[in-house]
Amino acid sequence: MKDDHDKEVLASLKKYVALVEEDLYQPKPRYLDAFFFPNEKNVDRIVQYLSKATKSLKICVFNITNDRLANAIADAHKRGVQVRLISDDECMHNPGSDVSWLSSQGVPIRTDDNEQNHMHNKFAIIDDTHLITGSFNWTVQAGKSNQENVLVVDNPYYIEKYNTEFENLWKGFAAN
Amino acid sequence: MKDDHDKEVLASLKKYVALVEEDLYQPKPRYLDAFFFPNEKNVDRIVQYLSKATKSLKICVFNITNDRLANAIADAHKRGVQVRLISDDECMHNPGSDVSWLSSQGVPIRTDDNEQNHMHNKFAIIDDTHLITGSFNWTVQAGKSNQENVLVVDNPYYIEKYNTEFENLWKGFAAN
Ligand SMILES: [Zn+2]
Ligand SMILES: [Zn+2]
Repeated sequence: MKDDHDKEVLASLKKYVALVEEDLYQPKPRYLDAFFFPNEKNVDRIVQYLSKATKSLKICVFNITNDRLANAIADAHKRGVQVRLISDDECMHNPGSDVSWLSSQGVPIRTDDNEQNHMHNKFAIIDDTHLITGSFNWTVQAGKSNQENVLVVDNPYYIEKYNTEFENLWKGFAAN
Repeated sequence: MKDDHDKEVLASLKKYVALVEEDLYQPKPRYLDAFFFPNEKNVDRIVQYLSKATKSLKICVFNITNDRLANAIADAHKRGVQVRLISDDECMHNPGSDVSWLSSQGVPIRTDDNEQNHMHNKFAIIDDTHLITGSFNWTVQAGKSNQENVLVVDNPYYIEKYNTEFENLWKGFAAN
């Protein structure tokens, strides 16, 4: 080592490498996941994600008729998770929809109010750390009969974008 | 520097840091993206992704009625990109569907053959490097009127899973 400057470089490199190693080998919990339907067991994977929520649950889904998913949402609300739900107005008033039931359980709900348009999203942001999205409506039909995909991402890039969209829709839609 | 061992450590650290820096500051093209509808301009973002395909395009969408997206698929096929399309049987036979037209243009197409079930996916894998998915059907209504989300991911974890699902569906569905 030639001089003090080299010593400094080595010290700062070592610190840098330690930081990188910590990040690489002791990463924060990752939520990379992807699964497909029809597959009734994969409905439980979504239930699992909902049941692990500890802080907030922002759900924006076209339709909910699957009672296992509706119960998981109600359970989160009961244990003090901040739950908010955006859904489609026509779907909400369909017989068999669980959205009205969730409203009766005290879950704050907003919908669009346009018969021609669909609030067609099917995503959920859990604890502001991971996002579940895809083609899958939270219905019995989708889990049992349809070809569908769901992916879970945890890159903050997506969380931020979907959070902003959720808040925009929440502001734009009326309370029910 | 005390001895040759320290010199080695410094050399290997410098190399390591250089590699990390290259990875951090000169990364391979990333495809992190997310956008929302209704927004006609965001249809063009999907068109852009399709128009940049150079090798393969695996598309698995419930319904296509948006001519801009259909043309982008036909253009890719014409310039030699390996295009394959999976869609829903009922949607394909709807008036206004572009799926039959794409078939007449020589694009290989497969669909489910079950009236009760829906091939409800809406994803595309481009050049085996990035995946476009979300709630958005490739229709005029979805772009102009609906609340919809699309995200683009490039983590090989997702590419591999969706590739496997695409090939499974392709094998399971009949040619049209
Ligand atoms: Zn509506
Ligand atoms: Zn079908």
